[in-house]
Amino acid sequence: MKKISFKDDYSTGAHPRILQAIHRANKGIEESYGNDSYSKKAEKKIKKIFACENSSVHFVSSGTQANLLVISSALKPYESVIAAHTGHIHLHETGAIEATGHKINTIETKDGKLSPALIQKILDAHHTPPHMVKPKMVYISNATELGTVYTLSELENLSLFCRQNHLYLYLDGARLGNALTTNNDIKASDICKLTDAFYIGGTKNGGMFGEAIVIKNKQINENFEYLMKQKGALIAKSRYLGAQFEEFFHTNLYFELAKRANTQAKKLLDKLKPLNVKFDTINQTNQIFPILPSSVVRQLTKDFDFHIWEKINEDLLKIRLVTSWNTTDEEIDILIDKIDNYLKS
Amino acid sequence: MKKISFKDDYSTGAHPRILQAIHRANKGIEESYGNDSYSKKAEKKIKKIFACENSSVHFVSSGTQANLLVISSALKPYESVIAAHTGHIHLHETGAIEATGHKINTIETKDGKLSPALIQKILDAHHTPPHMVKPKMVYISNATELGTVYTLSELENLSLFCRQNHLYLYLDGARLGNALTTNNDIKASDICKLTDAFYIGGTKNGGMFGEAIVIKNKQINENFEYLMKQKGALIAKSRYLGAQFEEFFHTNLYFELAKRANTQAKKLLDKLKPLNVKFDTINQTNQIFPILPSSVVRQLTKDFDFHIWEKINEDLLKIRLVTSWNTTDEEIDILIDKIDNYLKS
Amino acid sequence: MKKISFKDDYSTGAHPRILQAIHRANKGIEESYGNDSYSKKAEKKIKKIFACENSSVHFVSSGTQANLLVISSALKPYESVIAAHTGHIHLHETGAIEATGHKINTIETKDGKLSPALIQKILDAHHTPPHMVKPKMVYISNATELGTVYTLSELENLSLFCRQNHLYLYLDGARLGNALTTNNDIKASDICKLTDAFYIGGTKNGGMFGEAIVIKNKQINENFEYLMKQKGALIAKSRYLGAQFEEFFHTNLYFELAKRANTQAKKLLDKLKPLNVKFDTINQTNQIFPILPSSVVRQLTKDFDFHIWEKINEDLLKIRLVTSWNTTDEEIDILIDKIDNYLKS
Amino acid sequence: MKKISFKDDYSTGAHPRILQAIHRANKGIEESYGNDSYSKKAEKKIKKIFACENSSVHFVSSGTQANLLVISSALKPYESVIAAHTGHIHLHETGAIEATGHKINTIETKDGKLSPALIQKILDAHHTPPHMVKPKMVYISNATELGTVYTLSELENLSLFCRQNHLYLYLDGARLGNALTTNNDIKASDICKLTDAFYIGGTKNGGMFGEAIVIKNKQINENFEYLMKQKGALIAKSRYLGAQFEEFFHTNLYFELAKRANTQAKKLLDKLKPLNVKFDTINQTNQIFPILPSSVVRQLTKDFDFHIWEKINEDLLKIRLVTSWNTTDEEIDILIDKIDNYLKS
Repeated sequence: MKKISFKDDYSTGAHPRILQAIHRANKGIEESYGNDSYSKKAEKKIKKIFACENSSVHFVSSGTQANLLVISSALKPYESVIAAHTGHIHLHETGAIEATGHKINTIETKDGKLSPALIQKILDAHHTPPHMVKPKMVYISNATELGTVYTLSELENLSLFCRQNHLYLYLDGARLGNALTTNNDIKASDICKLTDAFYIGGTKNGGMFGEAIVIKNKQINENFEYLMKQKGALIAKSRYLGAQFEEFFHTNLYFELAKRANTQAKKLLDKLKPLNVKFDTINQTNQIFPILPSSVVRQLTKDFDFHIWEKINEDLLKIRLVTSWNTTDEEIDILIDKIDNYLKS
Repeated sequence: MKKISFKDDYSTGAHPRILQAIHRANKGIEESYGNDSYSKKAEKKIKKIFACENSSVHFVSSGTQANLLVISSALKPYESVIAAHTGHIHLHETGAIEATGHKINTIETKDGKLSPALIQKILDAHHTPPHMVKPKMVYISNATELGTVYTLSELENLSLFCRQNHLYLYLDGARLGNALTTNNDIKASDICKLTDAFYIGGTKNGGMFGEAIVIKNKQINENFEYLMKQKGALIAKSRYLGAQFEEFFHTNLYFELAKRANTQAKKLLDKLKPLNVKFDTINQTNQIFPILPSSVVRQLTKDFDFHIWEKINEDLLKIRLVTSWNTTDEEIDILIDKIDNYLKS
Repeated sequence: MKKISFKDDYSTGAHPRILQAIHRANKGIEESYGNDSYSKKAEKKIKKIFACENSSVHFVSSGTQANLLVISSALKPYESVIAAHTGHIHLHETGAIEATGHKINTIETKDGKLSPALIQKILDAHHTPPHMVKPKMVYISNATELGTVYTLSELENLSLFCRQNHLYLYLDGARLGNALTTNNDIKASDICKLTDAFYIGGTKNGGMFGEAIVIKNKQINENFEYLMKQKGALIAKSRYLGAQFEEFFHTNLYFELAKRANTQAKKLLDKLKPLNVKFDTINQTNQIFPILPSSVVRQLTKDFDFHIWEKINEDLLKIRLVTSWNTTDEEIDILIDKIDNYLKS
Repeated sequence: MKKISFKDDYSTGAHPRILQAIHRANKGIEESYGNDSYSKKAEKKIKKIFACENSSVHFVSSGTQANLLVISSALKPYESVIAAHTGHIHLHETGAIEATGHKINTIETKDGKLSPALIQKILDAHHTPPHMVKPKMVYISNATELGTVYTLSELENLSLFCRQNHLYLYLDGARLGNALTTNNDIKASDICKLTDAFYIGGTKNGGMFGEAIVIKNKQINENFEYLMKQKGALIAKSRYLGAQFEEFFHTNLYFELAKRANTQAKKLLDKLKPLNVKFDTINQTNQIFPILPSSVVRQLTKDFDFHIWEKINEDLLKIRLVTSWNTTDEEIDILIDKIDNYLKS
């Protein structure tokens, strides 16, 4: 029997409506390389929902591509980007940013989130020009890689701090839907208002493939298509990227799918707590990180797919459980049942 | 009324069977980042058809990505790649190869094809180490960007020459289907036998998106997935790439679609010749380059989409007409009719 | 017996006065990394002589370094530099420019010189954004690698053309002294007035090591020291670079040495012509390119060091003879004598 | 009156014998770009003293150049280098390594030294190929940037660990002389035996400019001159680099100068301790880091040049005092006197 997967939010397929949109987009002749009518319609909807009429929207096929494009477009050769130690660009993109020539200044954090005070430390340390890189951009993820989210006031503070210090603020939104649909005070329009650029993740939220880069800052956007082409990110039949995002934002689909994933994670969380399972971070989105006895984790691996995140000590392991738009209540119940049994035995 | 397009082979959609394959692949949980079952099945079929059991196959989403990955994986920082002046990597990839740090040594050719004699000139000119780059790879396209193809003996000669001179031979197969289904003596198995690496174009032959890189040379393939991830080319839901190529090669679909495009170009050619239209290259695939009076070209732009390729003189223009898997006989007839009329008037 | 060298202008040592300047600069504590008093005095003198008060001056230790720094400082990732096919950056810097990520658009020329008409062809060919690089800089050498020089009106035309087309104009002055002291109408002040940046070669004109980069364009100069440090071009004990250039321009030494080299080349030329030796370019500086029978060249290699430049045909070779600040009349006479003898025998 | 400098070991000039060597090397015609007779003689002496007959020696003009050349020659695009957080390549080279495309994996250390246990942590964390870089080299400095040194057994352990884990070991010897002449059990021959590559710093030890790269590992050395040329590190008149190192190692000059600097630092240390000045690292070479009241530091800045290294708390500052080959006993006494006075007042 196949294992039940709580491994990630991209091992599952695309939502049926996304597939239907792809179908519809398949007909007839369309302009290529981002100039198709579907991409234009998707751009329009995104601009409206995120209240970013003066921004530009570009569709690419992976998050790593989005990150390396925006960051290398923004920075001069000697400029660097500041990121949390847990940031995707630092840990899990095989040196993609450094491969474009730029250093990442990393900051240790408990919850994956940056703050003005933490960033100030990096700035303070860079006091001997021209012998050190020049920090010029702040990279944050929302939701973060640890499942946490920024509150509106946290993001406002970061935004203000960045402007005051002539730093670009860039938000990796691989799981932006999850951040915007959890119990939080942040809205879609805040994202565009408070950052210079961000991307809206499609792949991890029920899309087939594709991320939508939104760039408000004109300097970062200058000749961006040239860079996309150079890095192999410009897709000939771009209609299939546009069609997915048009469908996402034509109705409320994008937010519904994200909310559904969040809801399932919340259920999981609510059922784990009575079992006395410990957590050391507060997760409000579709990733939770329970701490379990190693023996329990070992037994779980027989029936479930998930990541072991960290060894806490000889007896305890922290694991990562990820829910997605199509995680069922039944799957959650089977998991809870097993954990309950293993904890008792 | 919409114009009829002879502009390229990627402004049209995907073949219905490709879409059906995407649909089937959408179900259930699959491994990600190239480890899905569809990619594995597609790899198996490609290895069989191209007789390259000991090669590795990697799926990416654009031809520029394929080129920059293979070339930067093969070359050390001071090594260069030799290409025809018309080569896609030189002309139409916005400096993608140089952006990975490598020089392209270009050669002027009439027909877009390289030969040992032409390459020898480049080698001869690089005689003052370490003050010049070290040519280490030869890049060819088949079919070429000018619609021409290599004969088997031409490719054999190139292959032998490259081995003798310690040069890798890499073949850009954006239109490999077209090269393999025209009236020529070259077979799929020859491609793998005679090169170190090549890619099989999906996008321009009725696919949605996707190119299959095949690497025979172990040195070029070493840790190739790391490089893919670093350059943003590793797609999370890789099943959709795999599924397309499984469908292409499960039956004969890939070659049928390419042959169909070639056939339509041949029809066009055969109908243009009686009108006394001139050509200065021999095109055997789905791209033809008729030379027409400027006035005729001007009139054609009202009803047809196509590229003006080159200004021959004040009165004559060379245009590019491209057919694809779904170019109809009717579209060809309408074009021929118009040209005939304009030439007579 | 040691061969007499006409091989180049850097196999000989530094002028005694340069050595004395190094000696004087050795005393005491000095600021490092370009902030020493010698560099500041040298900068001042250069600004005066080249009439470039609003420019910035940076000292580096090789011409390749100067070129890669200026060009990579000026260009965005997708921008390219236009150069003659004979340009040092294209032929003899082992892909230094491409290693910073930039394409060189090359132009075939007979005499190593660019003109608006030649550059216009490159611009015309780059008509399909964003699929092609964006030419943004023109690189010229003066004197060129073929010993030719730009007249004032040629440089004025280039300068105007570049401004009109939003192209930076950068002049490689590895042999700038030679260009400014030959029989020509161009002055030191014209160089700064008509370009965005240039460098003044020290190594090939009697220096120990060192080139002075002069940047007029503020955009190219922005944070230039950061880039210097990053590329390993910022020397700790910069006083030794500054001291050489202070000495060069404190009196007229720089121009005297260059003129001396030119004069010796002219003598050589004047004595070769009566022997009926052929030339296919007009050389006004310290490099001349006589065409001689292969048998004569073979015999000359016994007693002289020089480069064989090009095979004209089975019987004729073009060689390169370079004079320097300390080439003696006697050395010239010995060479002429030998050539005369070999031609007669 | 000029301040007395304890700021660094490169604000002072070159040793007179180095200047004399430069003088002698100035005569006559010499091969260029590393092929001169002085470089060859220097290479020979270095190989003998460091017992590295099968290594290759290359002379460059800055330590940043040495580091970026060796590291980028050793690593494939997706490979990384491990370094202490205090490592020069991480902190003070303006992203030079990242600019060649490579990530630095940093490790926090108290004393600037790496150990197998610390490196193992980095290896353990890199467990999800191909989503993370592949650590392939370990970079250490000896003496470190904090003035500490490796003992023989520490270096042996590191060397063994690296070999077992297929990691290259590279030693930055900007202050190698200081490390080899302090009270320690490590010898010149150990350096070559235990590393894959290292460089011998000239600039900070009484040279004019220049570092000698020694590469034992053939893979790292392959076509190294090409890379040097490409990065602008190949000096035309290389005789001046060779001559300095020939002089350094012809007699015992290199080690005498380093020992002298160490001795002066030791004197300083010995005179500070009776004044109850605190230290939080043990420094055995020419850099010491006393912790002093802020008020004392403020007063010292009137008469002395030095770096403020770190703010310990509101009242205390850690400063860096560097001695060099020509720091006099008198200068030390003046400094000690002043500190004594300021502490008492």
